[in-house]
Amino acid sequence: MKNLQHYDFSKRFDDVPLVGSAFSGEHPGMIPLAFGFPYPKSFPIDALVESATGALKSEGTQALQYSGGPGQQRILEWIRQRSQLRAIQVNTDQIMITSGSNQGIDLVARTLTDPGDSVWVEAPVYFGALRAFYLAENQLSAFPVDGDGLRVDLVESALIEAAAGKRPMPKFIYVLPNYHNPAGIRLSVERRRKLAQLAYAYNVYIVEDDAYVELNFTGEFWPSIYSFGPERVIYLSTFSKIVAPGIRMAWVICQNPDVLSKMKIIKTEGLTSVLMQEIVSDYLEKNDFENHLEPLITGYRMRRDVMVEAIHEFFGDEVSFEKPEGGFFLWLTFPTKTDTTRLLHESVKVGVSFVDGKAFYLHGKPTNDLRLAFSFCDEITIREGIQKLAAVYKKQKYFIR
Amino acid sequence: MKNLQHYDFSKRFDDVPLVGSAFSGEHPGMIPLAFGFPYPKSFPIDALVESATGALKSEGTQALQYSGGPGQQRILEWIRQRSQLRAIQVNTDQIMITSGSNQGIDLVARTLTDPGDSVWVEAPVYFGALRAFYLAENQLSAFPVDGDGLRVDLVESALIEAAAGKRPMPKFIYVLPNYHNPAGIRLSVERRRKLAQLAYAYNVYIVEDDAYVELNFTGEFWPSIYSFGPERVIYLSTFSKIVAPGIRMAWVICQNPDVLSKMKIIKTEGLTSVLMQEIVSDYLEKNDFENHLEPLITGYRMRRDVMVEAIHEFFGDEVSFEKPEGGFFLWLTFPTKTDTTRLLHESVKVGVSFVDGKAFYLHGKPTNDLRLAFSFCDEITIREGIQKLAAVYKKQKYFIR
Repeated sequence: MKNLQHYDFSKRFDDVPLVGSAFSGEHPGMIPLAFGFPYPKSFPIDALVESATGALKSEGTQALQYSGGPGQQRILEWIRQRSQLRAIQVNTDQIMITSGSNQGIDLVARTLTDPGDSVWVEAPVYFGALRAFYLAENQLSAFPVDGDGLRVDLVESALIEAAAGKRPMPKFIYVLPNYHNPAGIRLSVERRRKLAQLAYAYNVYIVEDDAYVELNFTGEFWPSIYSFGPERVIYLSTFSKIVAPGIRMAWVICQNPDVLSKMKIIKTEGLTSVLMQEIVSDYLEKNDFENHLEPLITGYRMRRDVMVEAIHEFFGDEVSFEKPEGGFFLWLTFPTKTDTTRLLHESVKVGVSFVDGKAFYLHGKPTNDLRLAFSFCDEITIREGIQKLAAVYKKQKYFIR
Repeated sequence: MKNLQHYDFSKRFDDVPLVGSAFSGEHPGMIPLAFGFPYPKSFPIDALVESATGALKSEGTQALQYSGGPGQQRILEWIRQRSQLRAIQVNTDQIMITSGSNQGIDLVARTLTDPGDSVWVEAPVYFGALRAFYLAENQLSAFPVDGDGLRVDLVESALIEAAAGKRPMPKFIYVLPNYHNPAGIRLSVERRRKLAQLAYAYNVYIVEDDAYVELNFTGEFWPSIYSFGPERVIYLSTFSKIVAPGIRMAWVICQNPDVLSKMKIIKTEGLTSVLMQEIVSDYLEKNDFENHLEPLITGYRMRRDVMVEAIHEFFGDEVSFEKPEGGFFLWLTFPTKTDTTRLLHESVKVGVSFVDGKAFYLHGKPTNDLRLAFSFCDEITIREGIQKLAAVYKKQKYFIR
């Protein structure tokens, strides 16, 4: 080993946490209510075996090359048609495939902003998006959510202030309208419309992260924010929750060709694995998507029901929450002074993990809320996890010191 | 369509070209000597079908999840062992999988540098790396290559100047030591050793891009630059040339854990497709890699031979080149005043594409050299391509105006 001089690496990206603090405590036997993971049996393994074989045999020569095969266009066409159900009218050349939605968020942030530009988010907000905005060196402000989602009235007041020069105008507002991660709620249709109007009026973009839209427990779809403002909304969704995360495939919809071409430039790996695109294309072509989705939704709804019942049973009136009508997450609020970071510390010891609230806020301080994922564990395990968590909580209430 | 106000997108990344200019002219019937693509029959399609099936059936539940399965560690172990043949001693935790080498170059550049920092490259230099450095907003200087690779003596003189404050010290020097893209040459062992010494002496990093190392036509391997300076060399290689580009899998080797963890932070898609990693792991485990590689090398050597012979036959003494002893590319130099950009314009009309020299230089002006890929086309097509190209050239010599 040579005696090395000090070397200055990039001064950026120093203190960006990799993931929520809860993930570090995982071990065998842990009940992972932290994981926003699909449940393992939801994966269409046999169909993917068929499609991998089919894609390699029929399109292998192209699919293994840099430029790929016909599957890319077929996936775009599938997304185009599927998007119509979300009231999104789009051409395939306005869709870009990304290696997961987090990459899409990163590309959007770096395309819309320069370091120091302002971005507004919800409070609480998905920590993966926060990471992307920290990496883009954005200045962040957060606006609270209630049972109807983002408080768009407060956003409007802030935009009025920004227009008056009293605070920086944001380049975009990041919103997760359906089955919010972590808050579990939906943004009301009226607020969606209003938010789109504000985007035009104040010349900002809305970045609409719609990762969970397909996992709808009520069957009643609400139109996307994009449908109210296609020129000022960039829309993201993903195959991670409806096929599998391991395929690493998501998409961005954007009307502005300059934004898309800039995003392609900074997506330095080039195309998202074209072999995987060929496999997914084959899968979508040969399988009835609705038939695939229906048991998936049933599975998640049952897990949600079990979690809700267990919370009522074991916590009683000690906690409050909005019942999620879709998605993966339930956001649990404790009495004001509870410190869920300390609660996590103890909970992990008895074998239950969750993500403590502070991972979802800009301030990074302990909070009295936490995220539970009902997506990954089976029903019996979910009930057991809530029971254990409640026992830990009731044994000693972890107040903020 | 609403009447939109002007919106300022990121001021960065405006004028970064997507790819070499030659790619735009492709059409059916074109002889693509531009493409640095493996030849289609080199892909192990049947074995990959087996491995896709095997991986999904045995590890599907994990491989389709965010975090993936055991294949990730197996691939790292394969790379570790294989690297020993390149005189690289490394632990698996010093290896990071990336979605292609271009992504690795981008991550390294953004980790080692801040905007405005200096980076030194070869002239000519791989345009994909140039793009990454432009995106990282690096200040670039280029140093010529000769038949023994980068002129390390000129690099040393420049480092002496930089140490004296007469020019900025580079954060790293990007070098492609084996079967250079585009120049086709190898960096001599003596220069490798010297470059590593300079890296320590002047406290800069060497970024060693070894994409083509396995495609060695002589059987004689030279030790990597990394082997002479493991603490100050970051080493990149890839499965793109030895399995297939469409799997999008490459790796970075780096001794410094801080560099690796920073790279993981800015790799916003998370892990490179864990399903694909499982498939590749299964492939590497069940197939004899040397048996796979041997016909591949034979195939590329035959193509190289045909191209070299055709150049002698159809160009005679009009052009000069170093015979590549491996890799994909042959770098052809024309008489001084020839403008290969104009030659390309005419050549495409008769159905032959290549990449004109200017794509590989910082100055971006027409040059008298060009890159031919012998990797993609079969032997008959290569001969036909060179014949047509020579005919175009001889009909009218395209001098710089």
